[in-house]
Amino acid sequence: MATDKRAERIARFIEPLRVKPGSRVDLTEDFDPAFKAGIKKKKDGVELLQTGVELLADYQRRLAAQDTHGVLVCLQSLDAGGKDGTIRHVMSGVNPQGVHVAGFKVPSAEEIDHDYLWRYAARLPARGEIGIFNRSHYEEVLVVRVHPEILDRQKLPPEARGKGLWRRRYREINDWERYLTDNGFTVVKMFLNLSKEEQRARFLRRIDVPERNWKFSASDARERARWDDYQRAFSQMLSATSTEWAPWYVIPADRKWFARICAAAVLAHTLIEIDPRYPEVSDEARRQLADVKRDLVKEAPKGAAPDPYLASADRKGAR
Amino acid sequence: MATDKRAERIARFIEPLRVKPGSRVDLTEDFDPAFKAGIKKKKDGVELLQTGVELLADYQRRLAAQDTHGVLVCLQSLDAGGKDGTIRHVMSGVNPQGVHVAGFKVPSAEEIDHDYLWRYAARLPARGEIGIFNRSHYEEVLVVRVHPEILDRQKLPPEARGKGLWRRRYREINDWERYLTDNGFTVVKMFLNLSKEEQRARFLRRIDVPERNWKFSASDARERARWDDYQRAFSQMLSATSTEWAPWYVIPADRKWFARICAAAVLAHTLIEIDPRYPEVSDEARRQLADVKRDLVKEAPKGAAPDPYLASADRKGAR
Repeated sequence: MATDKRAERIARFIEPLRVKPGSRVDLTEDFDPAFKAGIKKKKDGVELLQTGVELLADYQRRLAAQDTHGVLVCLQSLDAGGKDGTIRHVMSGVNPQGVHVAGFKVPSAEEIDHDYLWRYAARLPARGEIGIFNRSHYEEVLVVRVHPEILDRQKLPPEARGKGLWRRRYREINDWERYLTDNGFTVVKMFLNLSKEEQRARFLRRIDVPERNWKFSASDARERARWDDYQRAFSQMLSATSTEWAPWYVIPADRKWFARICAAAVLAHTLIEIDPRYPEVSDEARRQLADVKRDLVKEAPKGAAPDPYLASADRKGAR
Repeated sequence: MATDKRAERIARFIEPLRVKPGSRVDLTEDFDPAFKAGIKKKKDGVELLQTGVELLADYQRRLAAQDTHGVLVCLQSLDAGGKDGTIRHVMSGVNPQGVHVAGFKVPSAEEIDHDYLWRYAARLPARGEIGIFNRSHYEEVLVVRVHPEILDRQKLPPEARGKGLWRRRYREINDWERYLTDNGFTVVKMFLNLSKEEQRARFLRRIDVPERNWKFSASDARERARWDDYQRAFSQMLSATSTEWAPWYVIPADRKWFARICAAAVLAHTLIEIDPRYPEVSDEARRQLADVKRDLVKEAPKGAAPDPYLASADRKGAR
């Protein structure tokens, strides 16, 4: 378990990244994409990330064992913000069995035939799991807001549209996340905050690297042309949906290595707060285990000496 | 890409583990759980595993990019065979976004209301993904065969029961796997082959380690009492369902480190055979990329010198 000291250090580290519930965010003013908390170089951050990753692996095991709580991580960013790399690096040490990553593609006809949160609900993590939404239900107040023509395809009845739609969606999302939280599923949200200049540099690198450029399309560049609209949509979303129960963290994303440290720290903090424990073995179960043990020990292998159990007791449980 | 030489070495390494289609397996005779292919010590195997894990990470990226093929890995073993640890170690370097691990618990009423393969089909990997079944549809001819009372709960109509049931299930599974293979989903099956003595040692360790014993129940010991029945059920299953299109590999599991090397090698071999490639960028797309690049380069940051793009071109694409 994390010592209180370690837990405190992590809490202090992520404090400046959290959007205070009720505050009004202006992304272009309030958060610096190049912030690095005084850590000078990438190599100074490596050890920190390693510590975070190990802590996550340990806590994930407890979370799975306890099997009462789940964690949903929502990752948002503009193109080239580093979502994929963050997931890969932060989750590298965690048992893939306890992690589910969900991406959301163009909605199917069946999905459009449901309410807008339906397809996200269908991919929520189970108890004991960490679920990661690589883009999430927040697209419904981001890309849909910047491109309201998408709304036309969502088959909403007329009374569900009109003025106040975005404000209503913010409330609906907040309500949904409170419901999840109250039922054992912690929701934590991270926005990878990239500068326009760094996006430009990353786009250019993508175009130049043959193993990457199949992934890059002219539409990515078209979205970049709407930069200011997105910054506004993100600012309003952060202001309206950072709640006590499901806060937003704005992750400085211009340096990938620093973004990964921040993401690991936020997730570690979330798990420390849940504080999952291995289940207690009941007295009855303990008696049964003792019986089983006696039988197993008696089951001496024919003619084998020394007893391989005793020999193997020296080996570390390498599992 | 794997050099032909590396691919050949991997193919040779796993050859003795494969169950030849049409052969008749007797587990207690034909496969040694303590086999280690002449590798003397755990530390000699570490480098080998690392190589395999890196190769897997590279191939998974291509598989995801190509997005036409998927891989289903079925993992079976007796209790304490090391399935969880194998998954964790072998998949440690692979992007969690491209891997889905499915475990199967006691079936729900809805699941029992369907054909016996339904719940497994529902959790198949998508194209571009590696899916791992931690226990799989093979339970339907293993635990169900050893405990036929489970069959009574499967609501089968009378004509779907009776003599020849197991032979029919083998055929149905083979047919299903051929269908999957023919439609772009490679199926590879691994049986972690543990000796009775090593299971005993691992059970005893589990009972003794407090962080593990919540997981151990007296029913694990009861299943151990049916050891010979399980060995027979496994032998028949391996004989009947190792096919040209979806072979079984018997992984020597008494040494965890060696089992992990074998599992990584089998999966690497599978991916090398698929040989996924990054998609070709069309001439039209290439022209568009050139246009986008020109615009981005023109977008010179105000007063910034040197141009951060040119400066960043020296940095390695760290993503």
